[in-house]
Amino acid sequence: MEPVNRSWYFGERPTGEPDRDCFELRKDPVPAPSDGELLVRVEYLSVDPYMRGRMRDSESYAEPWDVGDVLQGGIVGEVVESHSEQYDVGDFVTGNGSWAEYSLLDADDVALVDPETADLPAYLGVLGMPGRTAYFGLLEVGDPKPGDTVVVSGAAGAVGSVVGQIAKLNGCRVVGFAGADEKTRWLTDDLGFDAAINYKETDDYGAALDEAAPDGVDVYFDNVGGPITDAVFTKLNLDARVAVCGQIAHYNDEELPTGPRKLPQLIAPRAKVQGLLVADYATRFGEASEQLATWVASGQIQHRESVVEGLENAPDAFLGLFSGDNIGKQVVHVRD
Amino acid sequence: MEPVNRSWYFGERPTGEPDRDCFELRKDPVPAPSDGELLVRVEYLSVDPYMRGRMRDSESYAEPWDVGDVLQGGIVGEVVESHSEQYDVGDFVTGNGSWAEYSLLDADDVALVDPETADLPAYLGVLGMPGRTAYFGLLEVGDPKPGDTVVVSGAAGAVGSVVGQIAKLNGCRVVGFAGADEKTRWLTDDLGFDAAINYKETDDYGAALDEAAPDGVDVYFDNVGGPITDAVFTKLNLDARVAVCGQIAHYNDEELPTGPRKLPQLIAPRAKVQGLLVADYATRFGEASEQLATWVASGQIQHRESVVEGLENAPDAFLGLFSGDNIGKQVVHVRD
Repeated sequence: MEPVNRSWYFGERPTGEPDRDCFELRKDPVPAPSDGELLVRVEYLSVDPYMRGRMRDSESYAEPWDVGDVLQGGIVGEVVESHSEQYDVGDFVTGNGSWAEYSLLDADDVALVDPETADLPAYLGVLGMPGRTAYFGLLEVGDPKPGDTVVVSGAAGAVGSVVGQIAKLNGCRVVGFAGADEKTRWLTDDLGFDAAINYKETDDYGAALDEAAPDGVDVYFDNVGGPITDAVFTKLNLDARVAVCGQIAHYNDEELPTGPRKLPQLIAPRAKVQGLLVADYATRFGEASEQLATWVASGQIQHRESVVEGLENAPDAFLGLFSGDNIGKQVVHVRD
Repeated sequence: MEPVNRSWYFGERPTGEPDRDCFELRKDPVPAPSDGELLVRVEYLSVDPYMRGRMRDSESYAEPWDVGDVLQGGIVGEVVESHSEQYDVGDFVTGNGSWAEYSLLDADDVALVDPETADLPAYLGVLGMPGRTAYFGLLEVGDPKPGDTVVVSGAAGAVGSVVGQIAKLNGCRVVGFAGADEKTRWLTDDLGFDAAINYKETDDYGAALDEAAPDGVDVYFDNVGGPITDAVFTKLNLDARVAVCGQIAHYNDEELPTGPRKLPQLIAPRAKVQGLLVADYATRFGEASEQLATWVASGQIQHRESVVEGLENAPDAFLGLFSGDNIGKQVVHVRD
């Protein structure tokens, strides 16, 4: 009997909020690697908000999935068969693979990970794409100076939690928005944020900002959009920088949503607003990974992962991103 | 009998669209210069959209006017009394003065103008603040590269008409939005714009852009805001730059207006949107003035002024900016 590989397929395009019908679990034979490929037994699988964009039938920075495609994302796992001289069976690697128990990866497109340096899920979070997004987004687009006030939305998420800590290491006052007391406590008590606002506990984000960021906002790192962003834009200081990393509040909108116009608000402060995509910094990923690993090893940056057990629950892990179920990086533990 | 100086005072703060009640013409004695001051007989007076912001009771980049203040703006005129060694009676100068027949100016804050090089009104337009705004806004914020498509709103205005011509000198494809056939004809037939869209003749700005800017938009120089800007944002290319110079469509709004959210549109193209204020480039004004004068002298940049005759009609000249009465720079001819 052939060994079986369970994989998640794209079942149907969502209209508005996705649900379980968008996902279809199938059993296939475990695939065989070609020359230069590795067969990896998936330990952890990453679910990320940007994947919602791949469910749309329109070109964006990430190619859209077609119905019937195997879903793809960041994975970390163990090499069980190698057709490449670069990696041996038993190595742990990370790369972009399938939402599956076993995934084929091109040896040229993976990186070795060391389970002694950090737990495997960290390689999908602080030491993976979200950590690098925080690193380049904050430092290159946000350009924080000591004494600046940095505001982060989605602050308890995989990217936001790292952004805030890097801002603290740069001598900034850091204010985070998050949607639960457990999250805001984590930000202030463990991660060293100067203030955190539970946006589900107040309607008046402007007043909350006046208290948490009395000197205004020099850098805004936006993962969310919506009313939080509307409020922050009224507090931008002269020469403020806004890094637009994500807009999760709008990913399930069918039409381009409306809101207060922001361009009139940019002139007086001469604020700069810039869309951010980590792939643009690919040639410098080594620098970021090294620095982040150093900070993690020294305890200067802390990290947390929310783990959903079982490949069969991967869709729920993904859907939970939109209701803010996760604290830190959301991953799926695939291997039994 | 003392010589009389007619001056426009700020009569009342407008709610929404300003009207003549905001302006009050009074007769005062002609003022006497103190040490270091010049008495200037005003030849031409500038009216500019940004002045609407000074009518608000809120701090912005330009200090708000108080009711009872003499209105201020760019002027060009002849020195009739000098208490400074820098300028002689008979010199023509430009600076910020009063909406009046005679204005006192600090000799340190004016610049000599040469009526032989260009007609006096040009010193309030292409060779004045609007020209410098176009120069720095396009070159520093817009950062145009040869082959880029540059879109300008308010393209037949004082700033936009210069922006488009500098973009052409930089090897760009240039598309302008304006609100009259006489304006669009001026842009394409005289100024060398590749295309011009009369936004009053179509509702579908997206389709008009698809035709006029088939390769998308690399640089957007925005003087207007509103639905034109909404359409341009759907066409931004990778690494697009948006210079937010003005938002005249919204200056009379009492509440922050709503519209399609733009931040979600910035991520895929990694677009950069930046508020622009020419005062930030004050140390480089000499460079701009010299370059603009060279271009004007060689005929590489053309300019046009709309002249309203008579100080008594200055409010109408200002109010006309919001209905697009002007082609090129709007000035008021003060001297009989």
